[in-house]
Amino acid sequence: MTEHIQFSPEKDALVLLDQRYLPTREDWFDCKTTDDIVEALIVMVVRGAPAIGVTAAYGCYLAGREVAGNSDWKVELEKNLDKIENARPTAVNLRWAVREMKRVWQESGDVSLDELCAVWLKRAKEIHVDDIRMCEDIGKFGGELMDDGDTIMTHCNAGALATAGYGTALGVVHGAVDQGKKVQVIANETRPFLQGARLTAYELHRDGIPVKVACDNACALLMKKGLVQKVVVGADRIAANGDAVNKIGTYGVALLAREFGIPFYVAAPVYTIDPETPTGDDVPIEDRTPTEVTHIGEHRITPEGVEVFNFAFDSTPNELIAGIITEKGVLRPPYIEAIKKLYSEED
Amino acid sequence: MTEHIQFSPEKDALVLLDQRYLPTREDWFDCKTTDDIVEALIVMVVRGAPAIGVTAAYGCYLAGREVAGNSDWKVELEKNLDKIENARPTAVNLRWAVREMKRVWQESGDVSLDELCAVWLKRAKEIHVDDIRMCEDIGKFGGELMDDGDTIMTHCNAGALATAGYGTALGVVHGAVDQGKKVQVIANETRPFLQGARLTAYELHRDGIPVKVACDNACALLMKKGLVQKVVVGADRIAANGDAVNKIGTYGVALLAREFGIPFYVAAPVYTIDPETPTGDDVPIEDRTPTEVTHIGEHRITPEGVEVFNFAFDSTPNELIAGIITEKGVLRPPYIEAIKKLYSEED
Repeated sequence: MTEHIQFSPEKDALVLLDQRYLPTREDWFDCKTTDDIVEALIVMVVRGAPAIGVTAAYGCYLAGREVAGNSDWKVELEKNLDKIENARPTAVNLRWAVREMKRVWQESGDVSLDELCAVWLKRAKEIHVDDIRMCEDIGKFGGELMDDGDTIMTHCNAGALATAGYGTALGVVHGAVDQGKKVQVIANETRPFLQGARLTAYELHRDGIPVKVACDNACALLMKKGLVQKVVVGADRIAANGDAVNKIGTYGVALLAREFGIPFYVAAPVYTIDPETPTGDDVPIEDRTPTEVTHIGEHRITPEGVEVFNFAFDSTPNELIAGIITEKGVLRPPYIEAIKKLYSEED
Repeated sequence: MTEHIQFSPEKDALVLLDQRYLPTREDWFDCKTTDDIVEALIVMVVRGAPAIGVTAAYGCYLAGREVAGNSDWKVELEKNLDKIENARPTAVNLRWAVREMKRVWQESGDVSLDELCAVWLKRAKEIHVDDIRMCEDIGKFGGELMDDGDTIMTHCNAGALATAGYGTALGVVHGAVDQGKKVQVIANETRPFLQGARLTAYELHRDGIPVKVACDNACALLMKKGLVQKVVVGADRIAANGDAVNKIGTYGVALLAREFGIPFYVAAPVYTIDPETPTGDDVPIEDRTPTEVTHIGEHRITPEGVEVFNFAFDSTPNELIAGIITEKGVLRPPYIEAIKKLYSEED
């Protein structure tokens, strides 16, 4: 596929495929300033925890370019970085990427802005490339958990459009296919933003992997009919105890999977695991604009004056998760131990 | 509210509020022929099991008017009645209404077509009026099960627009309000046809009952947050063992309600209980047109060429149901006994 996150040296800009209009229109969104990056994150031109991380990394570079010529550039730059870090509250990858750039800055000592920007652009490109490799490794480990003939249900989009590579949850699907297994996917449409119907279906269909879209409501019936053998989803943040915060509705899918004895996996890079967050209940859940629920495109679906809920995420308790598929291997319960071990090895 | 099912003597037609365009537009749909009635049922100008029953009853009368002047009118009329009975497979109320009209025909002996039509119109009006009273009785019994301060979650629309009265599940809400209880409603939006977002929200908002719309995906989170005290839904068919077939997604809501210890009630008239259907698994589940899933209004949401699931109903097993609220009182488990008793009292 055409890379949906592209750094353009000619434009000195981050060019993003605008995911709001897929699959019907392929528009591109140029980010040249901090505000462009923040807008792209908030309105979800780009979404998906790893893709948010990569975008934020380039965003720090652009924030640096923006303050050139400003005598007080360090103060202004700090403000810009904070704006990016706070664009969305739930995905830890956003915070991780900005903090990583701050660490790089600190380690660089008393550099000029030009020097800092050069170092940052290089680091952003590394994060971008790492993300591609991370997806492949998740795909390899996760693919081994899938069986020939499986129908894999996924929720939201944890695919190429949510990462810089071929995806985390969909990376697992690609990994299984690469290992010669015949698998197919049920994409839950994932209201309100319809990432499943619009993005997951678009990616898999284009890649020639059989996919069928189901309304989120159909989950229990499809599982009861025996049409689902595995569930694989991504994550926006995984707590120290293994609770996984992901797109709203994931928790319900996980509870239903348990009811029907279907293994439920979470696929995410190690840096999605946040040892500073004790449990899923400690993760701030973004409350997004009502119009995502009240309207679809230009089409109003709820009556004027009626309020709606639009919590964007929920937390799936660790006991519902059969395994957390990372680029370092598959974590198994008890997650609190597995995660401690992972981080002690990293140090 | 303006009655959404109106028989017009001037037009000699059944005039239906076209529910496809609510809440944004109030169009009316005139039914003068069998094909009009069948179309109204199939495309869901009118939906909701009791409303389908009332519509079908008037439909039989219109089918009779249509064959006037036909020397072979009895044969043609039989064909028309079969067309109406088979317009949709799941709701038993459709079959019940047509069979009731057939029974009336049989009991009327060797009547002329004009005489038959007169008898049928009278019977259709009785069914219409019975439905209004049925809702009130369900409201009374169900209202007693609700507590002051409750937030009641409902799925799909089992309100005024699904009946000739003020609804079955929403009848329970009205009953609670009539009994002086302060209650509020969470309307699951109910993809794909959005009966909750469009119809339940419209009715309750107009009637001044507090209502908030949630995407179906939010169910587990809202329940976990303690925001739901009761679930009340309608039914399209209840089997002899108490399994309740209702709008797709109901089964998932019921499983989640059990997980969170929230009582789950089904509200439906006695004639929704079909002693001829042993279990919910024996009910034919309608598989509807893909466009309901692929499009919202004119807006395409899935990529071209991608298949979708569109099963319209699922079955909630009796063990998940705290009570079945009928116009004769509240049935309690074991339902197989309660239903046998109910029918033996009827005989």
